[in-house]
Amino acid sequence: MKKNRLEGFSDGVIAIIITIMVLELKVPHGEDIETLMPLIPVFLSYVLSFVYLGIYWNNHHHMLHAVQTVTGAILWANLHLLFWLSLVPFATGWMGENHFAAAPSALYGVVLLMAGVAYLILQQLIIASQGPGSIIKEAVGGDWKGKLSAVLYVVAILSAFRWRWISLGLYVLVALLWLIPDRRIEKVLRSEAPG
Amino acid sequence: MKKNRLEGFSDGVIAIIITIMVLELKVPHGEDIETLMPLIPVFLSYVLSFVYLGIYWNNHHHMLHAVQTVTGAILWANLHLLFWLSLVPFATGWMGENHFAAAPSALYGVVLLMAGVAYLILQQLIIASQGPGSIIKEAVGGDWKGKLSAVLYVVAILSAFRWRWISLGLYVLVALLWLIPDRRIEKVLRSEAPG
Amino acid sequence: MKKNRLEGFSDGVIAIIITIMVLELKVPHGEDIETLMPLIPVFLSYVLSFVYLGIYWNNHHHMLHAVQTVTGAILWANLHLLFWLSLVPFATGWMGENHFAAAPSALYGVVLLMAGVAYLILQQLIIASQGPGSIIKEAVGGDWKGKLSAVLYVVAILSAFRWRWISLGLYVLVALLWLIPDRRIEKVLRSEAPG
Amino acid sequence: MKKNRLEGFSDGVIAIIITIMVLELKVPHGEDIETLMPLIPVFLSYVLSFVYLGIYWNNHHHMLHAVQTVTGAILWANLHLLFWLSLVPFATGWMGENHFAAAPSALYGVVLLMAGVAYLILQQLIIASQGPGSIIKEAVGGDWKGKLSAVLYVVAILSAFRWRWISLGLYVLVALLWLIPDRRIEKVLRSEAPG
Repeated sequence: MKKNRLEGFSDGVIAIIITIMVLELKVPHGEDIETLMPLIPVFLSYVLSFVYLGIYWNNHHHMLHAVQTVTGAILWANLHLLFWLSLVPFATGWMGENHFAAAPSALYGVVLLMAGVAYLILQQLIIASQGPGSIIKEAVGGDWKGKLSAVLYVVAILSAFRWRWISLGLYVLVALLWLIPDRRIEKVLRSEAPG
Repeated sequence: MKKNRLEGFSDGVIAIIITIMVLELKVPHGEDIETLMPLIPVFLSYVLSFVYLGIYWNNHHHMLHAVQTVTGAILWANLHLLFWLSLVPFATGWMGENHFAAAPSALYGVVLLMAGVAYLILQQLIIASQGPGSIIKEAVGGDWKGKLSAVLYVVAILSAFRWRWISLGLYVLVALLWLIPDRRIEKVLRSEAPG
Repeated sequence: MKKNRLEGFSDGVIAIIITIMVLELKVPHGEDIETLMPLIPVFLSYVLSFVYLGIYWNNHHHMLHAVQTVTGAILWANLHLLFWLSLVPFATGWMGENHFAAAPSALYGVVLLMAGVAYLILQQLIIASQGPGSIIKEAVGGDWKGKLSAVLYVVAILSAFRWRWISLGLYVLVALLWLIPDRRIEKVLRSEAPG
Repeated sequence: MKKNRLEGFSDGVIAIIITIMVLELKVPHGEDIETLMPLIPVFLSYVLSFVYLGIYWNNHHHMLHAVQTVTGAILWANLHLLFWLSLVPFATGWMGENHFAAAPSALYGVVLLMAGVAYLILQQLIIASQGPGSIIKEAVGGDWKGKLSAVLYVVAILSAFRWRWISLGLYVLVALLWLIPDRRIEKVLRSEAPG
């Protein structure tokens, strides 16, 4: 019951974030194809952020699936995650409009890093609430993906000021790393319960 | 369970897309009826896109109704469809504000074509996941509607640069073609299960 | 099942409409209380439209509660209603920004009239789908409220061009008329089923 | 059934309010870090309002959990609460853009006060509908938190015109007061029903 409402609210917020992001793609005033050219970096950063939000929605979905009870701490950790995700459209728009300039590319990484940290906090709270034998704990194991992503975000933030394309490349790399849905949880869940 | 959340998220995104599209209808500054005149093409393209999104929501609804298990591939194919649908407000706004000029009308067709292709990919993945005797496969048959729509979109994109009204006429025609809800799936479902 | 998704989608669209309407209340640039003054008519028209959308959500809720099967025609009649409701923020913004001028006040009435007609069509289709002994039919009876509202809207649209305050007064009157939730359906439902 | 739709609609509206609020954080035109500086007060007021809306969502969630029947009066009291919450983005934007100037800070308090009053009305109606032995009544007791908040809002509104930082400090204080989820209801619920 409580869990349903948490999922519904999170889905609503993520659905709105993913969709208002497209409002940064402002309708150009000319009618020629060339008027679309300046929008290409805005479009590309939209694609990247769409994929990131899709990954978060997907993994959030898998993680909550294994939750039994929603505590007050989990509720707030979830809101904390949604807070950082809500800043993605701003960071995406700033990066896209400035053609991947240094500071906007670094800020984009900071927002992704904070969202990643918020996700980790939520994950830890869920593991703690499940006690020993936690399905999530077993599923994520040492969580090398989460740790590696955090390291790559930090490298990307620092490189943004000198080699911005490396920075952008790292954001794409982390997205690819996660694009594969978190089969770890799925696998453990399947071995626990039939169907 | 998982399916419910996929439906809920898709409904949320489609509901937001359909509604933010109306934000392109910017409140004019004058108070006379004449100030509404330049908005007429924006309004007409809004009506057309509203119908298209209604069709997608409707058919998506019927298709997911027949899905039993949601795989990772289906989740991402669904996000891919939502991605192209999220570009509809942009393409609609550009086309409407430029009174159905060549490039915007062609872009509108490209977005519709890509959404159509994304829908087909989703449909194929669902059919594949259902194995032999798939309800969806039986329901869509040779899928002449999907194929014809793709051909008509391509013709419309090409004609946009010479005969823009033919292009627009084709978009209206494809919408009319689909306005009839996909009774094929409904029919097969009804013959499978009573009630 | 199908009904749940129709309700969910309608709720989503109405929730978004009601909330994006507030975006017309643009943050003023000064920091004095006086800078809020020009926003007063925008605010008042927001209040009026918020009440109207609340009424629609409320009555839609009661009406769908009594629906057993959702046909294709009902789906499209529902989308048709949502279409006209989606134009409420535009009409509200235009009327508010022009301090209830003639044409904007008339347009506001046209949108309300069309939404009312769309609601009636939806109601008739639901009654038809329920066959003889329809709960909705019994509940609405001669539907004097719906008929009176339509007449008052027409009077309001016509008076907008001469006596705008009468026009506005009629919009407030119709809202008050409906503010009382549709107890008719509730009453009949209660007498049919215990609990 | 009815309750679910009330929760779903409220969640939708709160999710949209919380997310469109971020649209006030307008993407700056420069690409330097300094261009972000004027956005800092806008960002801080966004954080504050995000926390407030999180608190409302959280407590609304707990309160509705204990509701058995949704009357017409409860439906409208809920819409009344959503109305005041929908004004939070406007008040937040005005306060943030004017760096916590007097009138905007006072207006922010007025909106919070009205939302608080609307919450109290909703709470009283739910208690009344539950009759003697109401779980909510037992849970909130004398409701010192609600009463204290109202007093602090009034003090904050009045101090805004002389000592604006006291005013802002009081808004932060009230948020901290409520940040702790309403364990009172949780506690009573737990002692009533196992699980």
